[in-house]
Amino acid sequence: MSTLDGFERQPSRVHVTEVGPRDGLQNEPVVLTTAEKLELIHALVAAGVNAFEITSFVSPRAVPALADAGELVAELRGLDGVHLSALVPNRRGAERALEAGIDAVVMFVSASETHNAKNVNRTVDASLAGFEEVARLLEGSEVELRGAIATSFGCPFEGDVEVAAVGRIARRFADLGVRHVSLGDTTGMATPPLVTERIRHLREVAPQIAPTLHFHNTRGIGLANVMQGLALGVDRYESSIGGLGGCPFAPGASGNIASEDLVYLLDEMGIDSGIDLARMIEAARVATRLMGRDLPGQVSKAGARLTLSDCSAVPTARG
Amino acid sequence: MSTLDGFERQPSRVHVTEVGPRDGLQNEPVVLTTAEKLELIHALVAAGVNAFEITSFVSPRAVPALADAGELVAELRGLDGVHLSALVPNRRGAERALEAGIDAVVMFVSASETHNAKNVNRTVDASLAGFEEVARLLEGSEVELRGAIATSFGCPFEGDVEVAAVGRIARRFADLGVRHVSLGDTTGMATPPLVTERIRHLREVAPQIAPTLHFHNTRGIGLANVMQGLALGVDRYESSIGGLGGCPFAPGASGNIASEDLVYLLDEMGIDSGIDLARMIEAARVATRLMGRDLPGQVSKAGARLTLSDCSAVPTARG
Repeated sequence: MSTLDGFERQPSRVHVTEVGPRDGLQNEPVVLTTAEKLELIHALVAAGVNAFEITSFVSPRAVPALADAGELVAELRGLDGVHLSALVPNRRGAERALEAGIDAVVMFVSASETHNAKNVNRTVDASLAGFEEVARLLEGSEVELRGAIATSFGCPFEGDVEVAAVGRIARRFADLGVRHVSLGDTTGMATPPLVTERIRHLREVAPQIAPTLHFHNTRGIGLANVMQGLALGVDRYESSIGGLGGCPFAPGASGNIASEDLVYLLDEMGIDSGIDLARMIEAARVATRLMGRDLPGQVSKAGARLTLSDCSAVPTARG
Repeated sequence: MSTLDGFERQPSRVHVTEVGPRDGLQNEPVVLTTAEKLELIHALVAAGVNAFEITSFVSPRAVPALADAGELVAELRGLDGVHLSALVPNRRGAERALEAGIDAVVMFVSASETHNAKNVNRTVDASLAGFEEVARLLEGSEVELRGAIATSFGCPFEGDVEVAAVGRIARRFADLGVRHVSLGDTTGMATPPLVTERIRHLREVAPQIAPTLHFHNTRGIGLANVMQGLALGVDRYESSIGGLGGCPFAPGASGNIASEDLVYLLDEMGIDSGIDLARMIEAARVATRLMGRDLPGQVSKAGARLTLSDCSAVPTARG
């Protein structure tokens, strides 16, 4: 069972960045205290998670759930072997992130104008121009500069997003020396063919970039998209513990793909993530307790594959 | 975006059998009336579903939710172009199914002894011997004989299931002239490598058989397994509207993969299922109303891909 049919390029190791503390928490009605966030993060670190998109340095009025950005990073920066990144919309955010002691600054922009306008109240070009300032600020520092492109697979306002719009932004990031760029599936519009198209295009127009895939499970096909990414040889993914996140305008819809479900899939495919599934399931249960609601992740409910619970004990009726 | 990387064998058409009325309903705490089942089935037919595993001819005491098996088939048998199959555990069940006017009789057995014992109170060999009687009963009739192998990817009591155990049963089915055999992922233990291993083995030992994949989403990777099946060229799948089903012993855990999410994935991959997604979403909402609970299917909550709902309207915080 080593080489899977049609998966000749499947990576043997995958890098997983946990985005629960940022993307997972920013829209939740329940706002966690810094102490609660730390409990969850330490549970994830105990499971072997070593990379976090930990917060955003944005206006606390706009995103109250992330108002403790500086305090949270300061609490965590001493953790051995744990890499902390944070979103920044502009130079001011980057300054706060540096001050707090972040390892990587993630500049973000949407591939679609309408989403960028609603998200950061400026044009895509204005966002890109602002990134040059951020890059100058980081010159000579050891802090890594990263990029994230929201609505990379479709926009909730404009619909389809041209692959060239994603490629153009990726090239601008590459020009600033950025190596890691995340393609954000902001509202769950990614599909396997779109993953193929976008990854191939980036490899052509910005080969310096190692893309990260950031899928949402809004329409149920988040891990199908991961399968497509793996088939293409993409080895960097972002996910959220428990599938924290979701869409405030679609009741019951899932948010980010659940980290523990992703780790389960990778484990079963023989792909090393360095993360322990049993402890991820414990972390998902911590997240469920802290949020006080059922979360969309699945493997934490049924248990790992050889957890021998019986879901089929109806006589004379096979499943 | 036609040929996907690593998916050279991807089928251009896929046959979907709706198992909601049988696998979806058999474990639910809410028992639907025949009239309610008919409402749901007609909504599915309106969406273009033309194959149903409609019920089981088993003891009404064992599965009260399917006690109306004969009546339901009698109500539906006149539907033009709609194929109805039903599970039968033995000759007596097959007689009842024939009398009701079924199109295909599905003989079922588990690949693991313990599950077969708990499910039908006999050994695997005793089940297989009984199938010869069923086959004789059907000789000369126009009713198709099919097979289903429960716990094909793992057993909740025994753990891993040897691929040879699945192959042995498939060969026995083939000897009886059966062409369509469903591999049941009874408690959601299938993984992409197991799908590959089992499909390749069946092609070797029972090449006469066209396998059908029947996945559960218990651990969140049901559609990832479908991706693997498609990569292997498998063109027959079973699913349940809304993801009806579930596991009474794992609260919150999903059951069968949701038919509408499967159709959404196939549509986006350019694979024809003959089923209309918008109407499937309507059918999923009928199922939700009838069951009186949230169902695990996702695309019915968020809407199809270009349904432009905004899940990301938090200022200065991209998804």
